[in-house]
Amino acid sequence: MDETLLMIPGPTRVAPRVLKAMSENIVNHRSAIFGQILSETTQIMSDVFRTNNQSYLITGSGTAAMEAALVNILEKGDKVLNIVGGKFGQRFMQITEAHRGTSLPLEVEWGHAVNPDEVGFLLEEHDDIKAVTVVHNETSTGVVNPIQQLGKILRGYDALYVVDTVSSLGGDHVEVDDYGIDICVTGSQKCLAAPPGMAGITLSKDAWDVVNKTDSASYYLNLKKYRKSGDAEPPETPYTPSVSLMYAMHEALKVIVEEGLKNRVNRHKLAAEATRNGIKALNLELFPKEEVSSTTVTAVRMPEGVTDGEFRGTMRKKYRVELAGGQDHLKGNIFRIGHMGNITHRELITTFSAMEMTLRELGFEVEMGEGVAAIADTYLPEDL
Amino acid sequence: MDETLLMIPGPTRVAPRVLKAMSENIVNHRSAIFGQILSETTQIMSDVFRTNNQSYLITGSGTAAMEAALVNILEKGDKVLNIVGGKFGQRFMQITEAHRGTSLPLEVEWGHAVNPDEVGFLLEEHDDIKAVTVVHNETSTGVVNPIQQLGKILRGYDALYVVDTVSSLGGDHVEVDDYGIDICVTGSQKCLAAPPGMAGITLSKDAWDVVNKTDSASYYLNLKKYRKSGDAEPPETPYTPSVSLMYAMHEALKVIVEEGLKNRVNRHKLAAEATRNGIKALNLELFPKEEVSSTTVTAVRMPEGVTDGEFRGTMRKKYRVELAGGQDHLKGNIFRIGHMGNITHRELITTFSAMEMTLRELGFEVEMGEGVAAIADTYLPEDL
Repeated sequence: MDETLLMIPGPTRVAPRVLKAMSENIVNHRSAIFGQILSETTQIMSDVFRTNNQSYLITGSGTAAMEAALVNILEKGDKVLNIVGGKFGQRFMQITEAHRGTSLPLEVEWGHAVNPDEVGFLLEEHDDIKAVTVVHNETSTGVVNPIQQLGKILRGYDALYVVDTVSSLGGDHVEVDDYGIDICVTGSQKCLAAPPGMAGITLSKDAWDVVNKTDSASYYLNLKKYRKSGDAEPPETPYTPSVSLMYAMHEALKVIVEEGLKNRVNRHKLAAEATRNGIKALNLELFPKEEVSSTTVTAVRMPEGVTDGEFRGTMRKKYRVELAGGQDHLKGNIFRIGHMGNITHRELITTFSAMEMTLRELGFEVEMGEGVAAIADTYLPEDL
Repeated sequence: MDETLLMIPGPTRVAPRVLKAMSENIVNHRSAIFGQILSETTQIMSDVFRTNNQSYLITGSGTAAMEAALVNILEKGDKVLNIVGGKFGQRFMQITEAHRGTSLPLEVEWGHAVNPDEVGFLLEEHDDIKAVTVVHNETSTGVVNPIQQLGKILRGYDALYVVDTVSSLGGDHVEVDDYGIDICVTGSQKCLAAPPGMAGITLSKDAWDVVNKTDSASYYLNLKKYRKSGDAEPPETPYTPSVSLMYAMHEALKVIVEEGLKNRVNRHKLAAEATRNGIKALNLELFPKEEVSSTTVTAVRMPEGVTDGEFRGTMRKKYRVELAGGQDHLKGNIFRIGHMGNITHRELITTFSAMEMTLRELGFEVEMGEGVAAIADTYLPEDL
């Protein structure tokens, strides 16, 4: 249908073997054969989350899992500290409010990471914070938040630690148990490189204690039902899942095991470094500071005199490389290069070559080949 | 993975061309190319619902759409008349209660259809009923409810008419506009013969008027967001949809257009008649009365002296035909034959032949070939 190279922060390119898995015949979702696939898939999901706790897969987007994380722990008026530094941080706040929680937003300037000390101050100031939400990798701004340091601070408080790793899991370091994360959510279509439509979630014992005492205001996202069905023999989901997407997740997670999680994260780190080097070589400007730049998506200021429509339009129509624009107030001001999932130097070279041609065509001064060379240099062994 | 013939009431067998559609490359869900697929798919969805109103596709199970139907119209304490004659009727009641609505259950004995006059009496008695829910085809009991007659009665009242056609749409007569249905929901994996994981919903103007005044207690299932994104150019979904399942729905709905909706319903009616004739020829007993028997799933009393485990186990393991058991208090007492989606005489012949062998093997007196002959007789032209 479309041979465009997707360099957006999700959905990402899906490997042929994963796409192929979806063409297998549909089986009964309440059968031993499906139970086997489900339990293997959730087991690897837990391994990738780096947790000893059970994981659950929800047919729905990452947003469904974000909502599941909050709707199962919130009663009316419960206070939630929402760290808001971009569109997805805002989403946690909106979900808090949709479920009659009281949001205590910690506003962080878009393009910056949260300062963990500020979270500590707020936890000292308010002794009734039930949960703290943070987006590990803020896809909208290309910023990575310090979830390990936040976890250390949160250890001293009762508040549940809720982390969105939708666009980081499998592409950056996430250690659910080690960081003390109570509820962690992710999506299929980002660094896990499965097709969109499935979301993962895992909960600590502390989180389950709260869930057990809470009357979930959602039926479809009621995690007690997911646990009950997951514990059945054979394991099931409470409602009919997307059987085909489960095949795809099973295969995509097997790919991650084969590559090795550490290797995969390192591959993402290298791609991010190469991307930043390429951007600098073209005299373009990163949107966030380099030290808080994401490992999976790079946000870049739109060059002077070039419009978003011309730039991304030419990239897409002429060179068939799709980049993402800015969202909300960043629309037109930044563009974003997703380098998550199955990304190697090849896709980056293609992207930067197309960017060089596009920029030159649009009258922006660019030395042809400089971006591509910077990518290659980053991938070459250091001792050459 | 599995070559078992699925004769269960969903998921149903998916045609190779529909499975194949899912192996297409993933595209950006916020692109013109996806917008085109989305708008074509929702247009055919509306055609199949037989409505001039817009349809929406939700990544999730039929239950997600059932919840969407109620969570967007209910405020705390709102009264809902839930017609409960099986597991899915109960589900509407549970969803009503999960969202702090007040359920007024109209209990119908499992295996029977609702009497529309009783609904009329209740609507006269209670002038504050905000919505009436009914499951068109109660999958758990094999009963079809009279949604056309119910619609006539509901025309005289303000209550919204909410109908679950998850296991009937595309297999039995559903005329959303003509019957005066305000909110109609369906699932991908039943008569539409697409893979599980996507649900359809459509709303009348009256329903939207209520939705507009209601603060949805769900974020993921907030229909105002679906409408806003659906009206965008290009049309979108509010959250990342399952792109692959959208390809599959697009293809499965195209198959329905090619067959013709009337032909498809007639094919289902013939399959249901053949199944009932086969059951009677084997001296087995239908669970519901014949006049309220479903067009898409036939529920049969478990024969005397035969256990569910032996019967369905032998069918599955030895003959590789999968039937469904009973649910809740019907567990062990009935079995169910799904004949929805891509079902012709071939699958029924295979199923009945396997049933004859299984029953004989388990000591139940059965004349070999009688069931199969009854199927064939039903399919033969009448004038032969």
